[in-house]
Amino acid sequence: MTIDICLSPALYPFYQNENDTVIVVDVFRASATMCTALANDAAAIIPVADIEEAKRYKAEGFLVGAERNAQKCDFADFGNSPFDYKKEIVQNKEIVFTTTNGTQAIEAAKNAKHLFIGTFSNIDALVKECVEIDGKIVILCAGWNNRINVEDTLFGGAFAEKLSEKTDTVFGSDAMKIAVELWQLAKNDLLSYIKKTDHYHRLIANGVESDAEYCLRQNTVSVVPYYDIINRKLRVKHADR
Amino acid sequence: MTIDICLSPALYPFYQNENDTVIVVDVFRASATMCTALANDAAAIIPVADIEEAKRYKAEGFLVGAERNAQKCDFADFGNSPFDYKKEIVQNKEIVFTTTNGTQAIEAAKNAKHLFIGTFSNIDALVKECVEIDGKIVILCAGWNNRINVEDTLFGGAFAEKLSEKTDTVFGSDAMKIAVELWQLAKNDLLSYIKKTDHYHRLIANGVESDAEYCLRQNTVSVVPYYDIINRKLRVKHADR
Repeated sequence: MTIDICLSPALYPFYQNENDTVIVVDVFRASATMCTALANDAAAIIPVADIEEAKRYKAEGFLVGAERNAQKCDFADFGNSPFDYKKEIVQNKEIVFTTTNGTQAIEAAKNAKHLFIGTFSNIDALVKECVEIDGKIVILCAGWNNRINVEDTLFGGAFAEKLSEKTDTVFGSDAMKIAVELWQLAKNDLLSYIKKTDHYHRLIANGVESDAEYCLRQNTVSVVPYYDIINRKLRVKHADR
Repeated sequence: MTIDICLSPALYPFYQNENDTVIVVDVFRASATMCTALANDAAAIIPVADIEEAKRYKAEGFLVGAERNAQKCDFADFGNSPFDYKKEIVQNKEIVFTTTNGTQAIEAAKNAKHLFIGTFSNIDALVKECVEIDGKIVILCAGWNNRINVEDTLFGGAFAEKLSEKTDTVFGSDAMKIAVELWQLAKNDLLSYIKKTDHYHRLIANGVESDAEYCLRQNTVSVVPYYDIINRKLRVKHADR
């Protein structure tokens, strides 16, 4: 199996192949937030790329999560903190969701054969899902405003390492090799390593350090969100189906 | 001084700032080839992004270097090997030059405040030039068909390390931090490290392993090619001017 990584949504056109399985990762924090909402039995997540569309859903009575530049949008019910999406609020509800980077990456890759959401929170469930996949897997990093970030790159390295322990895996590009090398440097003390990054400082500045720690913790949930292209919704795919 | 790195020409629109100094790097092999031609007293290099334009210059009697996918184009005088550009052939001549990745990167950044060509071959001359610069420096990696490559990323790390030894330097993004980390892993045995990369295998397949070794050697020349925006030519800027 070939695994590759695309370090920015702006580079995805140079990877795009409708036979590929794409894993969208936005470590801080959209991936963990979507995983948590679905693990707390939200019926579905409707990802939208722009604020105006999110506002229209809000006017129709939907629950809306919306973040821009690490802050909750005023009109929204939730921001981009996984802790916002509590079971008693989200259970059986469809939630509209837009974030600075994560939902743009979903939009970029929506024509992939399979589109999953991955992060440290659901890494083992995702590996279990992906060992069965036929064809190439591309990790699509949400990055930051189309620029590269360390945390999404590290997730790519961690995922590739775990996948290669379960099945014969070929690293499809230099970018994949770089991500795996970086993960070797960081994995023994991930939080310390991440503290040097740009996004961590943005999270600290917004008072959500506890979100950062949660987002780096492995296997807090066992759900794999997948994108249902017909209905344009993310739903849960349990690893132990 | 802030130093940043843009890992693909396709990401340069998210960096673009006309006050920045840009260093275009294409380690295998366009940067070393341009440095060598100018060190061998070529009068100038006229970079062109497409083959048709190169053919028009050829018809007008210019010497033309042209490469696509690691091979010399049939109509051209030279390919993309630094060894092609011997003093007795290039001295006092203007040379038209187009390559798969390098000349596209020059095109992307041609409106920068200063545009230099850098690689291991001229790294110390380039550092000497850049310590005097006012404002931000962005290393623009040519990559491979807009995808990221290890060798250009490593040059970015090496250059940032050397610059930070000479002047107070801030790493402008996560990408810059990743490049510096990677350089730390590779620098003690660069050739062995590079042998794991995609592009090295392409060079071997084309029988130009000696080019690869030459392109990784530091300070084989002391010229800094700079882009003259008025005349759209690369000329030499000697470090010891």
